[in-house]
Amino acid sequence: MFARNAWYVAAMPSEVAEGPLGRTICNESMVFYRGREGQVHALEDFCPHRGAPLSLGRVCDGKLVCGYHGLQMGCEGKTVSMPGQRVQGFPAIRSFPAVERYGFIWVWPGEASQADPARIHHLPWADSEEWAYGGGMYHIQCDYRLMIDNLMDLTHETYVHATSIGQKEIDEVPCTTRVQGEEVITSRTMHGIQAPPFWQMALRSNGLPDGQPVDRWQICHFTPPSHVMIEVGVALAGHGGYDAPPEVKASSIVVDFITPESDTSHWYFWGMARNFKAHDTALTATLREGQGKVFAEDQAVLERQQANLLRWPDRKLLMLNIDSGGVQSRKVLDRFIAAERTMAAVG
Amino acid sequence: MFARNAWYVAAMPSEVAEGPLGRTICNESMVFYRGREGQVHALEDFCPHRGAPLSLGRVCDGKLVCGYHGLQMGCEGKTVSMPGQRVQGFPAIRSFPAVERYGFIWVWPGEASQADPARIHHLPWADSEEWAYGGGMYHIQCDYRLMIDNLMDLTHETYVHATSIGQKEIDEVPCTTRVQGEEVITSRTMHGIQAPPFWQMALRSNGLPDGQPVDRWQICHFTPPSHVMIEVGVALAGHGGYDAPPEVKASSIVVDFITPESDTSHWYFWGMARNFKAHDTALTATLREGQGKVFAEDQAVLERQQANLLRWPDRKLLMLNIDSGGVQSRKVLDRFIAAERTMAAVG
Amino acid sequence: MFARNAWYVAAMPSEVAEGPLGRTICNESMVFYRGREGQVHALEDFCPHRGAPLSLGRVCDGKLVCGYHGLQMGCEGKTVSMPGQRVQGFPAIRSFPAVERYGFIWVWPGEASQADPARIHHLPWADSEEWAYGGGMYHIQCDYRLMIDNLMDLTHETYVHATSIGQKEIDEVPCTTRVQGEEVITSRTMHGIQAPPFWQMALRSNGLPDGQPVDRWQICHFTPPSHVMIEVGVALAGHGGYDAPPEVKASSIVVDFITPESDTSHWYFWGMARNFKAHDTALTATLREGQGKVFAEDQAVLERQQANLLRWPDRKLLMLNIDSGGVQSRKVLDRFIAAERTMAAVG
Repeated sequence: MFARNAWYVAAMPSEVAEGPLGRTICNESMVFYRGREGQVHALEDFCPHRGAPLSLGRVCDGKLVCGYHGLQMGCEGKTVSMPGQRVQGFPAIRSFPAVERYGFIWVWPGEASQADPARIHHLPWADSEEWAYGGGMYHIQCDYRLMIDNLMDLTHETYVHATSIGQKEIDEVPCTTRVQGEEVITSRTMHGIQAPPFWQMALRSNGLPDGQPVDRWQICHFTPPSHVMIEVGVALAGHGGYDAPPEVKASSIVVDFITPESDTSHWYFWGMARNFKAHDTALTATLREGQGKVFAEDQAVLERQQANLLRWPDRKLLMLNIDSGGVQSRKVLDRFIAAERTMAAVG
Repeated sequence: MFARNAWYVAAMPSEVAEGPLGRTICNESMVFYRGREGQVHALEDFCPHRGAPLSLGRVCDGKLVCGYHGLQMGCEGKTVSMPGQRVQGFPAIRSFPAVERYGFIWVWPGEASQADPARIHHLPWADSEEWAYGGGMYHIQCDYRLMIDNLMDLTHETYVHATSIGQKEIDEVPCTTRVQGEEVITSRTMHGIQAPPFWQMALRSNGLPDGQPVDRWQICHFTPPSHVMIEVGVALAGHGGYDAPPEVKASSIVVDFITPESDTSHWYFWGMARNFKAHDTALTATLREGQGKVFAEDQAVLERQQANLLRWPDRKLLMLNIDSGGVQSRKVLDRFIAAERTMAAVG
Repeated sequence: MFARNAWYVAAMPSEVAEGPLGRTICNESMVFYRGREGQVHALEDFCPHRGAPLSLGRVCDGKLVCGYHGLQMGCEGKTVSMPGQRVQGFPAIRSFPAVERYGFIWVWPGEASQADPARIHHLPWADSEEWAYGGGMYHIQCDYRLMIDNLMDLTHETYVHATSIGQKEIDEVPCTTRVQGEEVITSRTMHGIQAPPFWQMALRSNGLPDGQPVDRWQICHFTPPSHVMIEVGVALAGHGGYDAPPEVKASSIVVDFITPESDTSHWYFWGMARNFKAHDTALTATLREGQGKVFAEDQAVLERQQANLLRWPDRKLLMLNIDSGGVQSRKVLDRFIAAERTMAAVG
């Protein structure tokens, strides 16, 4: 169950470089490619001639050319030409609104007429020289909502990521959750603790001592359909924590775009945006590698959790206080999807 | 959907050498083995004792011996003997008419009483000293009819085989298709063109210059249930093309036997018969390797096409002029299968 | 179809050492772990919090700790604690009676109230200093009853194990089968034969000549739910065979615990108990390696047999005299399962 009238991250720009990319988003089999000026287009991945996937083909002069018999497809889903053929009567295929922005390729799998690029999730750091971003993508075999649950309850770090970002204090400090319109925010601050290994590295990278007590915060923001931005950081203790001046803290935003593929699989675009040492590409690479290991630990747990839930489909899960971030996010999401369906019925 | 009362190529003789071979043909699980004088037999791959596949066993003295408890099966599907047992009452298993001819093992998966070896597709070159043959077999995950379509419309060579046998002119010269009884013939001749890499090699192998303009022809012959023989060749331009004398041309027959395994998979026996340098085994090996690479490109496209068609089962495909070879072949095939069913209902 | 109110071998002790072990037994997904004093517990492999498999977690201080959010589960299936939570109202998960005995971990997948450890299959050799045991476990993709059939008809050794323990005489000497209560015994003795390779090795290991005629016996004991103990051995010919004095024979017990995983897969615990050279660990390793190879041959046949039976579900298999061990075992098993169901209906 997922919203269709929404902007999802579909790909990283590097994935749609030379040739076309085939990818299923919200059960829609799509092909992504770049037109003549490099702008991104998304179409059904189906050649109207003989049904071959267009993603097997190549791009010539901004046209997508089928790799089987050379049909040339235009960005609106209408066949432009085919050797020796009159193509006017060829059936069109569906096109999907697609936009490249903030270093991601976004797609709208639902009703095209409602796709307003102004509604793409705003990422102010993405356009700033003072920020750097590094990230990656994992194909994960579980319902995308299990990933939302995961990210909206960080007590799991103590257990799943014990050797990197986890620490006992996450478990011990309660979180608070609030809903602001469509946004769910769950936050936790730990005072005067020892920084865990990942943050010790970040402190050192930032020119700060890694052995002193710190205040550590985690502020998770969910917005529909499935974006989770987590403000995370540590400040040397006694300087105001989240509000401490930049020179005594290391902070960043954990960026999570969670794009459904099917009911039990998704594309997980993860990364980190930081506003310290923004031009240190070696640091970007190091952070990216560390994050990649952390999220691979999540993947292992989530895929096994999904398998277990499929085995016991009738069991109700608990909704504890630590789960309220996920519970509230799902409520917002349910309303979001219900509204979409109401609009479709009315429209 | 496939004809059952027909001779299909089931295996290459080398596949049924020492031990038995298990292979499913037209959804029938079969075991092939050689009797005492080396003649080939085909039976259900099921031991009547405990259901083990007979293809796991061995051949002793022309008898197929089950690898589990030693039941000896005869070529008619009746148990011959079993240690310590009276076998007269053992249920028989089905036997399938099988013939080794023209360098292939043929099987008739349908009604045995109608299996007349005289109806095996005639391959005059196979018995001639002046011809050589080399080929191979691929297990392909698609409906065998997609392979027929593929071979009866060679415009795909321009796109799928761009680096070997494809060239722009194939696309540009229209083909003509005609039906003669059960045979469908689709042909194309390109005049005064540059030979593509594969044919340059063939010209050189034949002692001819590879840089001069040539006339190139492709004449595809479909006959049911699923054989496609393609006369292909190039002649130095201006000597009459297909009808040019042997010393100025290089020509051969692309041999395609397409044997259904299931509704969405088949065994593809491919090869090339040529009547030049017939005794040059190194050339046979070179040609075979080249063809193997070409058909692997088809495999990649066809398996993805099949997956796409399963995803969109209700979409109608286009039937263009270039598709008429495949379209007419399917019509002949449909009539062939309908006639078989009428006979079964009457008989 | 399998009995549920019975003790099955679930694991080897080494499999439940440091961390928990997840394993499905009789379609029940279980986690095995050791409590504070090392005693083994078995629970449903499902965390009541968010459904993650508990087998992903770790054991701390004898408590099973979920690897996702740290829920601590007790051995009765009741949550003991969870950071920051009141757990009294958490739903319990199922616990399964589990016992470690005779070098195996046993589990009772059915009605816990009926689980009497006194009913665990008695293995007198396991507690004796004069006996040694070596074995292993294979995960086999077939109905556990096909393995029972296999072990209760050793004529297959001639064909499946031709290079190790098979020999023509097994086929030629009839077996006799008798039922004693719930036990089925099928036995065969071959007189004055040549020892096959495996037994030649055993004779040599036992300090006996390997080239002289021997008497060889095989006495298979089936008891429900699915245990097969096979007394096997050879004695130098003319000394009384099975009853010959220890100094002229080599004998052992082939130990087979066959534990259903699903309807078409099982865990096969195989091994050998011997009362000669009991302290020769190198010999134990050699025998174990030999047995491992032999049972891998069975696995290959059984998995292909299972696939064939699924393809032809309506075919009846033959029940010959050689099959009577398996046939009688299945009858005992059917009665055992029927009785269990009657009790459940009455109870």
